[in-house]
Amino acid sequence: MPKKIGVVLSGCGVYDGAEIHEAVITLLTLDRLEAEAVVCAPDVPQLHVVDHLTGEVVEGETRNVLVESARIARGKIRDVREVPADELDGLILPGGFGAAKNLCDFAVRGPDCSVQEDVARLVREVHRQGKPIAAVCIAPALIARILGDETPELTIGTDAETAAGLEKMGARHVDCPVREFVVDRERKLISTPAYMLAERIGEAADGIEKTVRTLLEMA
Amino acid sequence: MPKKIGVVLSGCGVYDGAEIHEAVITLLTLDRLEAEAVVCAPDVPQLHVVDHLTGEVVEGETRNVLVESARIARGKIRDVREVPADELDGLILPGGFGAAKNLCDFAVRGPDCSVQEDVARLVREVHRQGKPIAAVCIAPALIARILGDETPELTIGTDAETAAGLEKMGARHVDCPVREFVVDRERKLISTPAYMLAERIGEAADGIEKTVRTLLEMA
Repeated sequence: MPKKIGVVLSGCGVYDGAEIHEAVITLLTLDRLEAEAVVCAPDVPQLHVVDHLTGEVVEGETRNVLVESARIARGKIRDVREVPADELDGLILPGGFGAAKNLCDFAVRGPDCSVQEDVARLVREVHRQGKPIAAVCIAPALIARILGDETPELTIGTDAETAAGLEKMGARHVDCPVREFVVDRERKLISTPAYMLAERIGEAADGIEKTVRTLLEMA
Repeated sequence: MPKKIGVVLSGCGVYDGAEIHEAVITLLTLDRLEAEAVVCAPDVPQLHVVDHLTGEVVEGETRNVLVESARIARGKIRDVREVPADELDGLILPGGFGAAKNLCDFAVRGPDCSVQEDVARLVREVHRQGKPIAAVCIAPALIARILGDETPELTIGTDAETAAGLEKMGARHVDCPVREFVVDRERKLISTPAYMLAERIGEAADGIEKTVRTLLEMA
């Protein structure tokens, strides 16, 4: 039986959704390691829509996180609310601003953020069942918010302000180079900086591939 | 000096734009082989917008091909009109319905299709300069339309009706398994079926990686 790994997306595009390269590299690595991806996203409106050519917010436009995430999943996606932890052997959250704007509001409220309820429920249940969880790029902020009382060891790369935000939520932050990853073996958490630091796609891919491999080893 | 390869996108999402997996795997492979991607797209409206969750056309919504393609390119993208062939060592066109709906209208008009003028100009100039061109998934239809009078050897996989459409435009179609590719060495054209046949991302990736490697060898 192939291992089933939940992949939580947050839209489609680095500035208002899931980071597309991180999401696709995650899916490719899972497939090549013979795991099955259970792609899901919350059925909620995006915080906003950003024109990725200009970087500006588009006034008056709304898009739905689940519907846009379906672009990355080629339509094969489920509402995260309908994915039980029992079904999964592990979970991974790619990054992109969507992880900090749509899955939680860390981008707006920093360490005072709250996490979208369906995503929080799935993360909490997978963790309670002793299954591993990986978080890429800025997604560790969300893990820090949910599991901060267990002082999880996480990385978002080397950005001091973001790291301080994670620590304020209870995490211990570990600096990490772009092609590497950090494992908290006790709490079964894996994280990698990806585009928090990457200047080219191959750098992000190296760290994500190691992260996914470790996730599957622990699953 | 790294080789510079133009990557022509057609939006962001398999049903109305560029196939996201194919585009990202193309960018990753170019980067790992030390080539520089010059990502570009035409500044035109999409044929339509498809809800990738339901598969239905969204009435009344319009999106721009260049703006949506910028999501895959993380904002680092140029209007294809402003990319001269002189600057490039080769060109690659990922697939997705966008290649047959936005870069040309093969999806609507079949072998009677015409190609978006800026894209046609770039393909023609790169080819005239003796530089290689790769086309993924359905994108060979566009190459057949532009270069059909040279009877190029191309593949779109094994679909008989689509293959007949390419032949009607002057191409010689060669059946090809999903993880492989077809090279027309005389005309410097490379093609691979990718999601015309792929049932999983790793299948598409194998063919695209071989295609990009061959493109760079010929560049």
